[in-house]
Amino acid sequence: MSLRVTFLGTSGAIPTTERNPAALFVSREGDDLLFDCGEGTQRQMMRYGTGFGVDHLFVTHTHGDHVLGIPGLTQTMDFNERERPLAVHVPAGERSTAKRLLNATGNTPSFPVRVKEVRAGDVALDGDGYEVRAFDVNHRTNAVGYAIVEDDRKGRFDREKAEEELGIEPGPKYSQLHRGESVELEDGTVVDPDAVVGDPRPGRTVVYTGDTTPTGSTVEAAADADLLVHDATFTDECEDRAASTAHSTAAQAGSIARQAGARRLALVHISSRYAGDVSAHEAEAAGEFDGESWVPSDGETFDVPFPDADD
Amino acid sequence: MSLRVTFLGTSGAIPTTERNPAALFVSREGDDLLFDCGEGTQRQMMRYGTGFGVDHLFVTHTHGDHVLGIPGLTQTMDFNERERPLAVHVPAGERSTAKRLLNATGNTPSFPVRVKEVRAGDVALDGDGYEVRAFDVNHRTNAVGYAIVEDDRKGRFDREKAEEELGIEPGPKYSQLHRGESVELEDGTVVDPDAVVGDPRPGRTVVYTGDTTPTGSTVEAAADADLLVHDATFTDECEDRAASTAHSTAAQAGSIARQAGARRLALVHISSRYAGDVSAHEAEAAGEFDGESWVPSDGETFDVPFPDADD
Repeated sequence: MSLRVTFLGTSGAIPTTERNPAALFVSREGDDLLFDCGEGTQRQMMRYGTGFGVDHLFVTHTHGDHVLGIPGLTQTMDFNERERPLAVHVPAGERSTAKRLLNATGNTPSFPVRVKEVRAGDVALDGDGYEVRAFDVNHRTNAVGYAIVEDDRKGRFDREKAEEELGIEPGPKYSQLHRGESVELEDGTVVDPDAVVGDPRPGRTVVYTGDTTPTGSTVEAAADADLLVHDATFTDECEDRAASTAHSTAAQAGSIARQAGARRLALVHISSRYAGDVSAHEAEAAGEFDGESWVPSDGETFDVPFPDADD
Repeated sequence: MSLRVTFLGTSGAIPTTERNPAALFVSREGDDLLFDCGEGTQRQMMRYGTGFGVDHLFVTHTHGDHVLGIPGLTQTMDFNERERPLAVHVPAGERSTAKRLLNATGNTPSFPVRVKEVRAGDVALDGDGYEVRAFDVNHRTNAVGYAIVEDDRKGRFDREKAEEELGIEPGPKYSQLHRGESVELEDGTVVDPDAVVGDPRPGRTVVYTGDTTPTGSTVEAAADADLLVHDATFTDECEDRAASTAHSTAAQAGSIARQAGARRLALVHISSRYAGDVSAHEAEAAGEFDGESWVPSDGETFDVPFPDADD
C-alpha cells in the first residue's frame, strides 16, 4: 500500500532557481492529492512525473505563493480535455478568492471545478482507507493545515497458530477470521478471531502545515505522525522575523515535531535568503528533534513506511 | 549600443519540461522591456539572470499562457521593496482583465502599477532612442504585436576627409558637424555637415507578434526588421489546426519573414506536441525564408547587430 510524497515546491514567498513556490503532491494507492499550488506547479508536475490525475486540491491559504499556479494548472487540464470534476478545498472565507483565481483570465475551465470551504476539524475528504482532515494553524489569514490519516489496518494474522495449533485448514476461513468473523471447524469447535488475529495496527499519518507559527493545534494533529511537513521559513537568527510574518523557524518546527512525537520532519517554505545552503535549518531542527529531519529538494520523493514496518 | 533579446519562454499554451509559457525579454542599453509574462516567468528571469529592473511590460493578449506570471512577478517585486512604477501595456479592451490578474489573490502591489491600453498604430513607449509600437495581429481576441524600432543613427563622420582634405583640427568642431551644424574655420571658410557626414543610418527593429495567424500587418510592421519573433505553434501537417486556433505554422512564419524582408526569424510558441524535436519547424521555415531562422531554446540570448554591422 504505497504512500508517496513528492515535494514539488519548497521555496518561501519568493522562489529561487532551485526552489519553486509551495506545492506538495501525495499519491496513495492510485489516489493523487495536491496540497497548495504555487506558480509553476504544473511544470513541476511534468518535470517530476506526477501526472495530472489529481481530483482534490487542498489549499492551506490563498497567499500568492500557494495558489498562483491554480489557473495555469486548470487551463492545462482543460487543454488535455479533462472531464472529471476537480475539488478545490480552501479555508472558510476564501471561496471568492478561489473563484477569482480560477477565472483570472476571464475563462473558466469546461470541466466542473467545485470550490469547497473547510474549517478546522472538518474531514475535507473521506477517502477509501484514509481521510484528509483540516486543522487550525496560525498565519494571520484564513488558513488551515491538512492531515492525511489512514484507517487502522487489520491486526496481524497468526498463520502458524491457526494451522498448527488450532488445526484450521488454509482457505476461506482464514479470510473470515481476518475480517473479524468467528468460524466453526468440522469438529464443531468455534474459533473467535482474536485467537489468531492481533490488535488492529495503525495506518500512516502525513501532516502538512502550510505557513504557520508553531501551534499546539499542529502538535495535536501531528501526534505520532509518520511525516510532518512543517513551515521552516527561517533559522534562529530570524526568530523575530518569523514571529512578525507568522512563520516558523527550523528549531520551532523541530520542537513541534518532538512534542507531537512525530517520526520524521520535512522542513519546507525555505526563505530565498538561504538559497543554496540549508545546513543551518537542518542543524537547528536536529537540535530539537531526535527523529529524522531534513530539508527536501524540489522533486524529491519520500515513501512513507508503516509505523510497524520494522517490527 | 547593445540590443539583447532573451527568450524566457517559448512554449505554446501548454508548457513542457523544456519550455516555459510565453515571455520575451529585451534589454537595450540599460532599458529592460518584458513582452508577455506566462506562468513561471519570474523564475525564468532568475535562472537566466535578467534581473527585475523592468519598467514596462507589454502584453500581446490576455490568454493565460501569456499573462499568468504577472501576479507572481509583481508580488516578488513587492517583496523586493520596489517603489518605481510598473507600466503594463495591454490591448484595448483588456484593462479589466489586467486589473483582475494583478489583484488575483486580493492583494495589490504597494508600488504603482499603471495599466495602459494600446491600439494598433500607437506608440506604446517613446523611449530614449527607440519606440515600442503596437501593430495589428489576428488571434480572435483583443491582441496586438509590438515592434521595437530604434531611431536613425547619425551618418558616418569622415574623419580623414575632415582632417586631411578640409584641414579641420580635431576638436569640438567635429562634434558640431556630426550633430548637423555648420562650422566656420579660422580662415573664414564655412563647412557644411554634409561635406563630412554621410546619410543617417537606420537603427534596428525587433518585432514580436505574440499569437497570430499570418497577417499583412505583420509584414508591414516587420519590414526590413533585424529580428522577427513570430508565432510558429505548428508545422505544415497541422495547418488546419493553426487556422482554427488562430496560430501560424513555421512555414507561414517563414513566408511572412520573406515578404517583410526581415533579416532573421525566431520561431516561438512551439506546441507541446513537438516536445524535444523542432527539426520540422526549422526545415519548413527555411523552405520559405532565406535569412537566418531558428527555434530558440528557453534562456537563449541573441544580440541584435546593426543592419550595417558588416559594411
